[in-house]
Amino acid sequence: MTRTLTVNGARLWDTILASARIGPGRTPTGLRRLALTDADREMRDLFGRWCREAGCTVTVDRMGNMFARRPGTDDSLPPVLVGSHLDTQIAGGRYDGILGVLAALEIVRTLDDAGVRTRRPIEIVNWTNEEGARFQPPMLGSAVFAGVRTLEWGHARTDDAGRTVGEELRRIGYAGPAPVGGRAVDAYFELHIEQGPLLDDKGIPVGVVAGTYAVRGMNVEVRGETAHSGPTPMAARRNALVGGAMLIVAVNEIGFAYAPDGKATTSRIEVWPNLAGILPDYAKVTVDVRHPEATTVERMVADVQRAMADCAQRAQVEMAIVETWQFGSERFDPELVDLIRRAAKDLDAPSLDLPSQAGHDAYYVSRVAPTAMIFTPCDRGVSHNENESTRLEDALPGVNVLLRAVLERANR
Amino acid sequence: MTRTLTVNGARLWDTILASARIGPGRTPTGLRRLALTDADREMRDLFGRWCREAGCTVTVDRMGNMFARRPGTDDSLPPVLVGSHLDTQIAGGRYDGILGVLAALEIVRTLDDAGVRTRRPIEIVNWTNEEGARFQPPMLGSAVFAGVRTLEWGHARTDDAGRTVGEELRRIGYAGPAPVGGRAVDAYFELHIEQGPLLDDKGIPVGVVAGTYAVRGMNVEVRGETAHSGPTPMAARRNALVGGAMLIVAVNEIGFAYAPDGKATTSRIEVWPNLAGILPDYAKVTVDVRHPEATTVERMVADVQRAMADCAQRAQVEMAIVETWQFGSERFDPELVDLIRRAAKDLDAPSLDLPSQAGHDAYYVSRVAPTAMIFTPCDRGVSHNENESTRLEDALPGVNVLLRAVLERANR
Repeated sequence: MTRTLTVNGARLWDTILASARIGPGRTPTGLRRLALTDADREMRDLFGRWCREAGCTVTVDRMGNMFARRPGTDDSLPPVLVGSHLDTQIAGGRYDGILGVLAALEIVRTLDDAGVRTRRPIEIVNWTNEEGARFQPPMLGSAVFAGVRTLEWGHARTDDAGRTVGEELRRIGYAGPAPVGGRAVDAYFELHIEQGPLLDDKGIPVGVVAGTYAVRGMNVEVRGETAHSGPTPMAARRNALVGGAMLIVAVNEIGFAYAPDGKATTSRIEVWPNLAGILPDYAKVTVDVRHPEATTVERMVADVQRAMADCAQRAQVEMAIVETWQFGSERFDPELVDLIRRAAKDLDAPSLDLPSQAGHDAYYVSRVAPTAMIFTPCDRGVSHNENESTRLEDALPGVNVLLRAVLERANR
Repeated sequence: MTRTLTVNGARLWDTILASARIGPGRTPTGLRRLALTDADREMRDLFGRWCREAGCTVTVDRMGNMFARRPGTDDSLPPVLVGSHLDTQIAGGRYDGILGVLAALEIVRTLDDAGVRTRRPIEIVNWTNEEGARFQPPMLGSAVFAGVRTLEWGHARTDDAGRTVGEELRRIGYAGPAPVGGRAVDAYFELHIEQGPLLDDKGIPVGVVAGTYAVRGMNVEVRGETAHSGPTPMAARRNALVGGAMLIVAVNEIGFAYAPDGKATTSRIEVWPNLAGILPDYAKVTVDVRHPEATTVERMVADVQRAMADCAQRAQVEMAIVETWQFGSERFDPELVDLIRRAAKDLDAPSLDLPSQAGHDAYYVSRVAPTAMIFTPCDRGVSHNENESTRLEDALPGVNVLLRAVLERANR
């Protein structure tokens, strides 16, 4: 390259602020833009318009994943994909996922401004239901794209009101015609806020994602028996909520036993009938364990299973794992990771190799294409919270590294 | 009395079976007739028709409590009230409450058949929302009748969908014109299945309710902070669900510490946002402690408060009691209790003095009128469960004792 291209930070931030007006949260800085809601549709429409205005052709696949294609000079070559997701948590912020998609858009706009063509096509991607907040599991669109889940399975996921992904895709007009995945991809780059405190702590703007936390998720069903909450003797009770609560406490203790690297979480419980006066006969607890070492995660899962047996016995209930998911054993492409590291060096942007603790669409995409991720700082590592925050000056170095890496790869 | 009147058991059982067809539950023996639902309206309509066919005048008060009046020969005298409730738990049985109301109806029909007039009027009563399954707290209609709660407060209670008692009373046509309470009542009798195993265990058909369990209920709010369930360090987490689970486990342990007499229960939790991937910042746990001794219940409440402080510290959350209710410190009328004991003796029905562990409308009514209760056996003490069961031959002695006691009191 003969000169150093850099993106237009003010323009990038304008798109972030425009996105931040769609799907308002509980607080002015928060967003609530759950997958396939009206707010998601509004954001998708705006994003599609922006992409078309930037000369891209927008296609939508049958999982609602959106691809905005900027042609290459040899348009028959597999494209370089760049993106992330535009859906948010129910109490999410403005940057999680969104920064990655809009950074990709900004890269295309920058290339247009500079009149730079690339050999390979570049596609900006917005993956469906990354958060898993409305439809479990997370990273659903990329999972189907990568063949980890079938299209039928993806369409059949339901939200708490019983509406399916398939229905909701049709309702908001994003049940596209394109097949999901099954095509050659040259590379996938994803930029994302770190969602951890390392970069912010150290004042380093660029994170090179060198590894991933292995994550195992499971839904545990607890079955007891309804009874009157008054006369029923303590010793005769089979309270599914008590069994579930014991498991939640045990999972939390497992997290502490493997801290600081390991984490174990329950953030969701369903109870039936969940009323005063009657002992519930059913609970479902969502458990999530993660650790950088896959073998350690297996030990943590075994600990959870032992805790299930122990809690089931103590609460006189039955417990069973009824659904599982896993990700994070994937490894990113060494050549692409090195390309990002080099791009940061070329741009004099301080960088740090660090692992990703959260799940990302990049995990699944890495199964079907060379993949790498760039992290940018977020304030104190706070995420999935309305106070999630980052500054343009902290994000810009990462976006310029992304631009440089994408440009090099697309001209390969 | 010159002869011994007895009720028509087959007719009583026909009304039980007719009621058992309204508001079907998950299983053929179960009922799901939540207060002020369409099913409750259908049952109320049928009950009202039965009462009018038996020559009664039906009035409905502003809380939806129904009173079916059989005139006395001196109709200016305060009436003898007999009844219970027709609403059920979400997974309830055919007898809880229902047997008491329909036994009162059968008594009136029996008096009619025999051409027996009483000096005082007799009123069959159906109290609104005894179960507290749809609207908290339980025994709402009788609470307002007894002046424990105001009418405005009662009307403002909401279900999980946000609908109020007042709206729902109007919707089903049971927002009656009569004032709630505030009138003289000579006596209140309530027959109810025991909801405990004592009578069934001992094979004794009649329980004379000689005491009540003191009950203290409370809603505890837990406040934490949302965060990503992945990267957030265990030590930095303020997971409201973990705090709530710790409290549920602690409450269960308090129950065992005071067993067998004491009971401590959580059967309900609300969590926000209650999703995978995000630590919840809010939970609400419904706690219920009960013991025959009021002073011991106070100690149990103090234990719960200590547990709240401990769990809040361990989970790094805040906990506060936001709502309380209590009942069961009431004492039934010694004269009426003795009347029931004597009636059983006169009828050669084996009886047992025993305490009531569950809450009943009789508790509140006892604050404004002499009150007593009769228990009849239920299979293994199972209640608030679709398998709740009793046999006609086990119920009949209690119903005949009720008839004899009501008759004597109404002729006083």
